[in-house]
Amino acid sequence: MAEVKRYVYRFGGGKADGGADLKMLLGGKGANLGEMAKLGIPVPAGFTITTEACRYHQEHDGGYPPELEEQVREAVSHLEETTGRNFGDAKNPLLLSVRSGSPASMPGMMDTVLNLGLNDEAVEGLAAQTNPRFAYDAYRRFVAMYGSVVLGVKDTSGSGVDPFHEALDTLKEERNARTDLDLTTDDLKELVQRYKKALEDAGKRLPQDPWDQLWRAIAAVFLSWGNPRARVYRRMHHIPETWGTAVNVQSMVFGNLDDTSGTGVLFTRDPATGENRVYGEYLLSAQGEDVVAGTRTPQPIESAQKSDPDQVSLEETMPEIYRELVEVRNRLERHYRDMQDTEFTIEQGKLHILQTRAGKRTGFASVRIAVEMVDEGLITEDEAILRLQPAEQLSQLLQPIFDPEAKAQAEVLAKGLPAGPGAACGRLTLTADAAVRMAEQGEPVVLVRHETSPDDIAGMAASVGILTSRGGMTSHAAVVARQMGKVAVVGCDGVSIDYASKKVRVSGKTFQEGDWLSFDGTTGELLAGKVPTRASEVLQVLIDKTLNAADAPVYKLYEKLMSWADDRRALGVRANADKPEQATTALAFGAEGIGLCRTEHMFFGEDRIPYVQQAIITEDASARSEALKQLLKMQTEDFTGILQVMDDNPVIIRLLDPPMHEFLPHDDKDIEALARRFGIADDELKSRIKDLHEFNPMLGHRGCRLGITNTELYDMQAEAIFRAAVNLAREGHNPRPYVMVPLVGLASEMRAVRRRVDAIAARTMAEEGVEVAYKVGTMIEVPRACVVADEIAHEAQFFSFGTNDLTQMAFGFSRDDAGRFIRAYLDENILPIDPFQTIDQDGIGALMRMGTEKGRQAVPDLSVGICGEHGGESSSVQFCHELGLDYVSASPFRIPIARLAAAQAALRR
Amino acid sequence: MAEVKRYVYRFGGGKADGGADLKMLLGGKGANLGEMAKLGIPVPAGFTITTEACRYHQEHDGGYPPELEEQVREAVSHLEETTGRNFGDAKNPLLLSVRSGSPASMPGMMDTVLNLGLNDEAVEGLAAQTNPRFAYDAYRRFVAMYGSVVLGVKDTSGSGVDPFHEALDTLKEERNARTDLDLTTDDLKELVQRYKKALEDAGKRLPQDPWDQLWRAIAAVFLSWGNPRARVYRRMHHIPETWGTAVNVQSMVFGNLDDTSGTGVLFTRDPATGENRVYGEYLLSAQGEDVVAGTRTPQPIESAQKSDPDQVSLEETMPEIYRELVEVRNRLERHYRDMQDTEFTIEQGKLHILQTRAGKRTGFASVRIAVEMVDEGLITEDEAILRLQPAEQLSQLLQPIFDPEAKAQAEVLAKGLPAGPGAACGRLTLTADAAVRMAEQGEPVVLVRHETSPDDIAGMAASVGILTSRGGMTSHAAVVARQMGKVAVVGCDGVSIDYASKKVRVSGKTFQEGDWLSFDGTTGELLAGKVPTRASEVLQVLIDKTLNAADAPVYKLYEKLMSWADDRRALGVRANADKPEQATTALAFGAEGIGLCRTEHMFFGEDRIPYVQQAIITEDASARSEALKQLLKMQTEDFTGILQVMDDNPVIIRLLDPPMHEFLPHDDKDIEALARRFGIADDELKSRIKDLHEFNPMLGHRGCRLGITNTELYDMQAEAIFRAAVNLAREGHNPRPYVMVPLVGLASEMRAVRRRVDAIAARTMAEEGVEVAYKVGTMIEVPRACVVADEIAHEAQFFSFGTNDLTQMAFGFSRDDAGRFIRAYLDENILPIDPFQTIDQDGIGALMRMGTEKGRQAVPDLSVGICGEHGGESSSVQFCHELGLDYVSASPFRIPIARLAAAQAALRR
Repeated sequence: MAEVKRYVYRFGGGKADGGADLKMLLGGKGANLGEMAKLGIPVPAGFTITTEACRYHQEHDGGYPPELEEQVREAVSHLEETTGRNFGDAKNPLLLSVRSGSPASMPGMMDTVLNLGLNDEAVEGLAAQTNPRFAYDAYRRFVAMYGSVVLGVKDTSGSGVDPFHEALDTLKEERNARTDLDLTTDDLKELVQRYKKALEDAGKRLPQDPWDQLWRAIAAVFLSWGNPRARVYRRMHHIPETWGTAVNVQSMVFGNLDDTSGTGVLFTRDPATGENRVYGEYLLSAQGEDVVAGTRTPQPIESAQKSDPDQVSLEETMPEIYRELVEVRNRLERHYRDMQDTEFTIEQGKLHILQTRAGKRTGFASVRIAVEMVDEGLITEDEAILRLQPAEQLSQLLQPIFDPEAKAQAEVLAKGLPAGPGAACGRLTLTADAAVRMAEQGEPVVLVRHETSPDDIAGMAASVGILTSRGGMTSHAAVVARQMGKVAVVGCDGVSIDYASKKVRVSGKTFQEGDWLSFDGTTGELLAGKVPTRASEVLQVLIDKTLNAADAPVYKLYEKLMSWADDRRALGVRANADKPEQATTALAFGAEGIGLCRTEHMFFGEDRIPYVQQAIITEDASARSEALKQLLKMQTEDFTGILQVMDDNPVIIRLLDPPMHEFLPHDDKDIEALARRFGIADDELKSRIKDLHEFNPMLGHRGCRLGITNTELYDMQAEAIFRAAVNLAREGHNPRPYVMVPLVGLASEMRAVRRRVDAIAARTMAEEGVEVAYKVGTMIEVPRACVVADEIAHEAQFFSFGTNDLTQMAFGFSRDDAGRFIRAYLDENILPIDPFQTIDQDGIGALMRMGTEKGRQAVPDLSVGICGEHGGESSSVQFCHELGLDYVSASPFRIPIARLAAAQAALRR
Repeated sequence: MAEVKRYVYRFGGGKADGGADLKMLLGGKGANLGEMAKLGIPVPAGFTITTEACRYHQEHDGGYPPELEEQVREAVSHLEETTGRNFGDAKNPLLLSVRSGSPASMPGMMDTVLNLGLNDEAVEGLAAQTNPRFAYDAYRRFVAMYGSVVLGVKDTSGSGVDPFHEALDTLKEERNARTDLDLTTDDLKELVQRYKKALEDAGKRLPQDPWDQLWRAIAAVFLSWGNPRARVYRRMHHIPETWGTAVNVQSMVFGNLDDTSGTGVLFTRDPATGENRVYGEYLLSAQGEDVVAGTRTPQPIESAQKSDPDQVSLEETMPEIYRELVEVRNRLERHYRDMQDTEFTIEQGKLHILQTRAGKRTGFASVRIAVEMVDEGLITEDEAILRLQPAEQLSQLLQPIFDPEAKAQAEVLAKGLPAGPGAACGRLTLTADAAVRMAEQGEPVVLVRHETSPDDIAGMAASVGILTSRGGMTSHAAVVARQMGKVAVVGCDGVSIDYASKKVRVSGKTFQEGDWLSFDGTTGELLAGKVPTRASEVLQVLIDKTLNAADAPVYKLYEKLMSWADDRRALGVRANADKPEQATTALAFGAEGIGLCRTEHMFFGEDRIPYVQQAIITEDASARSEALKQLLKMQTEDFTGILQVMDDNPVIIRLLDPPMHEFLPHDDKDIEALARRFGIADDELKSRIKDLHEFNPMLGHRGCRLGITNTELYDMQAEAIFRAAVNLAREGHNPRPYVMVPLVGLASEMRAVRRRVDAIAARTMAEEGVEVAYKVGTMIEVPRACVVADEIAHEAQFFSFGTNDLTQMAFGFSRDDAGRFIRAYLDENILPIDPFQTIDQDGIGALMRMGTEKGRQAVPDLSVGICGEHGGESSSVQFCHELGLDYVSASPFRIPIARLAAAQAALRR
């Protein structure tokens, strides 16, 4: 005979059928309840019905497994023995809580029923055992909860609330009662009658049989797995539909029974700072929902945690319970080896632990706890590394953050995409000029635009944060902001900007230029007014040098964690940086080279752009050659600067990428000014600019296409690179220039450009009599390049995946335009992730794999890296590690994230 | 002992060492000389030095194989025996021609030396044997030719011509001579002296030793393989650098010796019409170059060929030679089984054949010759099919063409891309309105624009041809023109258009609206003035129905050829057509269904666009629903029309593809008019339109992205398709609607759209109580779709490669902008082909292969086709056959090309 399948796991009285290792079967809550019971931690006895039963229920049209009924009956009678109460007993009733609990945390998504087992008789028994007011309060709560959750009686009158809340409010008005506490026992009895009437009006009835109550509650919990908001939540968090929920049935304990009762939440460490101390709050004579509801102010658990002398700690009011709680806290931390968030109830002087789980914490806290737990011997360095979320948690150490309390009070006006983590608070400006002007007056400013363009660079640099109403995670605003380390929120489409009147309207409010606005680049929230921020300690030590490492405990945590990560990672980490200052920052953050130096950013400088324009516009050969000579001089300085800062480290310099027309003005006034400067007719210049116009500039005459058809600019750039390198080498430096050709899709393109670059290198070195080692390689960013990577590898000395453009072209999504539908695609689960934020492994990743494999088939030791924005995104870094890339390159402020993510990838493999 | 390697192959006197099968070794000319010798055709004796010797010469720094010298000496002395003359002999000199001849035809690219063997002594011997004037004329020609070709004395004075031409001109001036013939023997002697002086001035000297002359001439021919113009020619024609050239050394024969001598060219059939008759021309007392130079008018060979009673045919002047020539012609045709282009010389009443090769011919001629040779039993049907170039030759049968003589006299003003084959001649118009207006007055018009847009459709339809100054082979103008069967030249960038003054400037000339212009869509040439055209017979039979097949010999050829092709091809052939008229044309051309019906073209109709605009702009739900209802009605009619014409055949209807803003006006006036119509403020509408603006519309919010985020339009289209199908089915028709979803890159996109389409199909059929079989499939045009084609195949019922967009995205080339650099890429051989014209097999083709293989891995019987413009291009059709696609779809006028190309592909496999 086959063994009977177990659907019910019991716990309580120091014993349990299951524990933490059965999380998939028992759900997180059930598994931890079992685990705690086995540890001897006082949990109210109960049992868990498995997720398997839920799946059976789904697959059998709401039927239960045949074994289930008997197993539940046995578990309930075991509970009766343990508690000394009887289910459905009129005198000494056993009351139960029935809660959902899935393998993944889905807070508030599914249903709960409390006080189950009460009926018209049992309430009298409970009244006799406790007191009538408590008993009838419990009963009316049960009727309401059961009515809405199990019987599905919700908004029957169309008022937006269920009839139970309506009845309560009506009665309170009739009795002139301010709060529920002003209602008498008789009032509560009356309320029970009115609740029952509401059920009757809806064609329902409260079952009086407790078994009937229980089975229908179990079914309701199972069904709640499939409710729409739970489905949406699972889609958003990639939780499989098939997992199902467990049902936890537990004997009730009451924190609101009398003055020797209470309830609270305990964190085993401070979730905000990570400090290793007991942290939490409690309320006497209260139920869990009272702590949450905020109608009474909870008190601290420890005396040391008191922020106000009027507060009364649990340590003072119930020293015994406090000691017991500390003991539980120590045991849980030792056992789980992680910070726990634990709910407890005290019933008539006895402590019960209702739930424990890994506690949510700030980035600061997560790093501190991980590092300190290693120091305490609780976890290994590997575990510490794997436990952290690089982008979400580590980056908080780098960014100024909002004062958490101040933020909680601020009004959230709108939400956009969190493009540059950190907190920004400043005066609203709508143009780059205004931002620069106001910043010069010493005011912190935030720049708000539909979108940004290279013209806005100065304004962005002057701002503490940038917010745009359009664009995605790799829009100009997002990319530049991250590279600058600026806070940024992009695509915040609730924001309506009127440049003419210099006003912004959002959420029914109007803001003028100069008004205070704040936004959180970690969450994407736009906040009204001035929400105070504080600066990051790590930055003060590494970048500003205003703080010594010795005086910077947070920095020391960071430093320790990074050294562990560096010991473990296989991937190199380089920086995307265009200027010596950025390169210095990148080095401070641990960059081992420059993976992408974008030369076009250098072209937009006020001192350069006239020469660039001249080189493009003039038809006079000598004027053009003069302009190129000037640019050569400036670019040589540019490259000298960055090569010198990065001495001994490779510096990958990408030749000019954007189309010509980006360097020319487009409105009539600017065109006229430029025409005057060059002494040509307005119309001629306009027609010249019109000729350069492109319908799809992203797919136009840019990158190596420009370098091949108009060779002068690339030649000038190559010469500048080698002049800079040769000069530095002569001074005893060790420059390592790598020339990178953008937008190569054909091996012949690479060959054509490389031939010229090699010739210029040879000529420059021969003229100067100094040899410098260098390489010429290519971006792999055109889909075709992945397909013919073997041919290209024979011409290019290194590959660097430009995943921004590769994503744009292989998806056919313009990053400037795709905001319109990517949001909708994510909402409707057409796209599981934003491919501009995280590498789309099935599509873009498959092309990268093809490119890497074909490239290395042709040239086995080919160096392959990535320099798209994805290089600083954790799961993408993991993917790059799996692909066997040599390095990732990220904007300077993302380098620590990349280092940590690379270590995690190496450990996970 | 190893056998001695043979580098020299002799021919002459009815024998030869090699023949046509040794073309790679002997070059085309040498192989055919050998072949003719073996056939007993009278070729002047000689020998060929192989291409292997050329390769050796290249690889050994100009050295010769050791065996060569002896083999050449032997061959020359054999030649001396055959001719009875002696090389270098003062009395009876053997004179030689030395010519290049590579395996591929490279006309005029390499060097030739004639009369080699003459020197200061031998010229006297020749004078004695012939006459002094002839001898010194031959000598001075030899000195000049040898001086420039072998000694490299070219433009020494910077005058742009070589010193020999200069000296000739000077002498003619001195002697007051009009032509060379006015110079006396003494003048020619003087000229020889002056030529020698010119050599001396350049530090050179004519070798007097004939052997020295010969070896240096051989070297010059070998070296001429590597001259720049030959290299460029090979790059353009994909001829491998490694092939090398052979050298043909032949005893000279002279057509200019006296009145019993002459020279000419013989075509074995009429190269213009293909008629099976002797065709050609000759000149008495002349050398080959005189025929080419055009200073004397050649006479016809046959009397029947005379166009003027004053002409004297060879048949009349030399009936014996004529008969011999006819005999040679018959022998050559029977032997080569193709029309031959043969050069001959008559020396003192004796016929010599100098060269034969397959003759160039018009498209008409090529078809007629191929079909008639099958009828004559000369070749098989398979050979006839394989011999034709579908696009270049077959399409000439469909297009009006220029009168060849008139065209030869016209001035070529500029050249663009040949986008729509045929001849256009009409009055210049610069706007669609003007084109329509002028056409209504019964004038043929040509429309000349920077580029065309959907607004120009009516104007294009009214024009006989379209010429644009911008855009490539798949620009709007090119695609629409081919679909309409219009002649088109695009990207003709020498043309400068001033819309304001209604003038066109090109090549220094100015044309006004109303002036006559002509252009050739087969060659891309723009011609000044009115060059007369004639209409195609095939079109008159098939489309216009103005001619009976019985009265149309060209049509009968076409019909025969097509039936042979259809018997052999495996690929289905469908049409890209949007309207019932186009579908009718497509059927006439043999389409087996519609592969692409673009619904957006229907939206631009004057009666529709207001509703489309209303559906996009209005925020009033009932107004929008009203607009959609109107569109539903119109689209139902559209689809009814095309499904009815194509009864029993599949009709693939693509749902709306372009972004919304394409349907809205963009200039202020139009916007104001539209705002007035909808009763909204100008500024509001402008801001609405601005919101819809996209930076890269090609990669923007279009295709299924629009269908998924704004479901109303797709829903309306699906309903229109099924209403049309259901109505037709009820009337006893057999509609076969296939719904095609554009721009799918994710399986989830396909799933989302298909779900809605299926639901609408089910609802419509249920409402009407009629069932119609249908399918829902997708374009494969986003590169990512190829990568995840297996996933998409589970959601889509058919695939159709959209190679236009696939090429754009995988190359990252915008077809609207890429004209700027694609031309340069082709010139510099960065790109071997224009990928918008011919499928790039290495890149785009590899993605298609991946898409096909992955799709069929998932669903083995998945139908896969192609509906990009490439579907009508021969080598692309061949590739589609190799990929195993089910069908190609092409614009109606390309369907015959596709049918023939598909047959060729099947035969080649």
